[in-house]
Amino acid sequence: MSDGLVHASLRGVDSHGIRLFPHYLAALKGGRINGQPKFLFDKTSPSTGILDADDAFGHSAGLKAVSKVVSMAKKSGMGSVSVKRSTHFGAASFFGLEMAKHDMLGFSFTNSDPLIPPTRGTNPYLGNNPICFTTPCADEDPICLDMATSMITFNKVLRMRENKETAPAGVGFDVNGYDTTDPNKIVSLAPAGGYKGYGLSLMVEILCALLSGMPFGPHIGHMYNDTLDKKRNLGQFFMAIKINCFSDPVQFKMRVKQLAIELRSQDQIDPNLPILVAGDPEKKISEERIHNGIPIGKYEQEFFHDLSIEYGIQLQGLI
Amino acid sequence: MSDGLVHASLRGVDSHGIRLFPHYLAALKGGRINGQPKFLFDKTSPSTGILDADDAFGHSAGLKAVSKVVSMAKKSGMGSVSVKRSTHFGAASFFGLEMAKHDMLGFSFTNSDPLIPPTRGTNPYLGNNPICFTTPCADEDPICLDMATSMITFNKVLRMRENKETAPAGVGFDVNGYDTTDPNKIVSLAPAGGYKGYGLSLMVEILCALLSGMPFGPHIGHMYNDTLDKKRNLGQFFMAIKINCFSDPVQFKMRVKQLAIELRSQDQIDPNLPILVAGDPEKKISEERIHNGIPIGKYEQEFFHDLSIEYGIQLQGLI
Repeated sequence: MSDGLVHASLRGVDSHGIRLFPHYLAALKGGRINGQPKFLFDKTSPSTGILDADDAFGHSAGLKAVSKVVSMAKKSGMGSVSVKRSTHFGAASFFGLEMAKHDMLGFSFTNSDPLIPPTRGTNPYLGNNPICFTTPCADEDPICLDMATSMITFNKVLRMRENKETAPAGVGFDVNGYDTTDPNKIVSLAPAGGYKGYGLSLMVEILCALLSGMPFGPHIGHMYNDTLDKKRNLGQFFMAIKINCFSDPVQFKMRVKQLAIELRSQDQIDPNLPILVAGDPEKKISEERIHNGIPIGKYEQEFFHDLSIEYGIQLQGLI
Repeated sequence: MSDGLVHASLRGVDSHGIRLFPHYLAALKGGRINGQPKFLFDKTSPSTGILDADDAFGHSAGLKAVSKVVSMAKKSGMGSVSVKRSTHFGAASFFGLEMAKHDMLGFSFTNSDPLIPPTRGTNPYLGNNPICFTTPCADEDPICLDMATSMITFNKVLRMRENKETAPAGVGFDVNGYDTTDPNKIVSLAPAGGYKGYGLSLMVEILCALLSGMPFGPHIGHMYNDTLDKKRNLGQFFMAIKINCFSDPVQFKMRVKQLAIELRSQDQIDPNLPILVAGDPEKKISEERIHNGIPIGKYEQEFFHDLSIEYGIQLQGLI
């Protein structure tokens, strides 16, 4: 779990980074998360399996699932694992990048709190369920698409409220399902590309909640709106494809690199705004933060300080 | 190929329906498409294989690939086939719905003519590469998401030009990469959800063109801008997941139905605009067209008439 949080924070995905640590600890103490889970893995075919996560940290359950996915894909060309009885797993890229290390294409998905209304509907029903796709690439870290199916996250709405900013048009809806630019009135998120993002959210919900037999849509346990003893019962889905079954991995990775180079060198609208490939912003922030550290807010700083006293652990590197 | 075109037209996807028949015949006569292909299938692992389509009709190559995917998934839980040296395969739903018949989740992808510029770029580079996901559902036809990764298709731009209509904001770019509502100035398409749609297009390009070793981005043979002897060298990717490896298929399909029912009965913004689930519009049109037939334009009518004389085939049902 710590690895997963630091991974996200290093890549600049602060919403899924170490700021969640206090919440996770509270969920552990509250009984929602099981700190000593008994994973139960059922291999159901040469390339598929089901992992009962026993309410473990989602990060930990996900890594277990990924190890099974990779081992099946090594032998059978593909592997997929449906995880049941799981919890919040942080940033989906944590798992996708793990699969990419083994010269595989990786996919990771989770369902999440209901935030997106179906197109033409007023109430949020589906999560802004992330889609993560990763591929290894020659001479640089893997290319990693890790996107929520909403235009922006609800975290961004909260920050706009705090900073008394106006929201861009087309990112959030009010209680009646109408577009609004007042962040205080935004109660649900616009799916990316309108009904297309709604369709993608539905796809992820089916892969995660339906395959695993877990509750779907608004019937899951909620991250913040439920008490911390309430189980979340999230479903997650991980999948890997062994590149060697289709192409020589060395050549494949050189061609991916060529594709990335060509995209980055296309004519730009604005010479000051470089063209990026999926995951480029995270790679850039990661380089900087590995050297300079992860910025943390006053609240986290105090939390870590109090925790160090409670557990008698000396804090290192906190400035 | 005929089955695929009629499938699309019956579902109201006219852009990928029988209006393409004249173009396909011309491509066959021009030598781009090989009417007597020798398919070469190489099974590379228990769940993966490569199909060399020998420049066949994409519909035909796709159905061949799907039969392999389904047979591998039956034994190994998952199956995927990368198709190389292929051509335009019509509507991706044609293949997805075939997989759903076997109680499998189906995915189908193809790369396509460069129409989407990378975010911040001026020139189209990636296709509006479709993503198709299908799942069987109790008591009704499968749920089928079949979406291009652009906000609208280029076909719609052409129709807006013909009808001298103004385009909605946010669907197309001019030669400088700026948003424009003048359909005559639109030369490239806006990805669905901005950079998210660009990322999804890249994912599909990697699954289709990179895995198969085919040319990528603008380096493929173009559908209309090249002479009809020029091979297209498209790549396609098909994938199936056997539901029975995760859940009892009967229960799974009942839960999918329950999810669809709940979505459709959510509170509506406008009582006259029902909430839909992916594929609902196509199901509705399909019901109507199976009874009343497929409307065709004057050009297609004349084309079919001339063809019937050339080949001595009596036309039936054409009004």
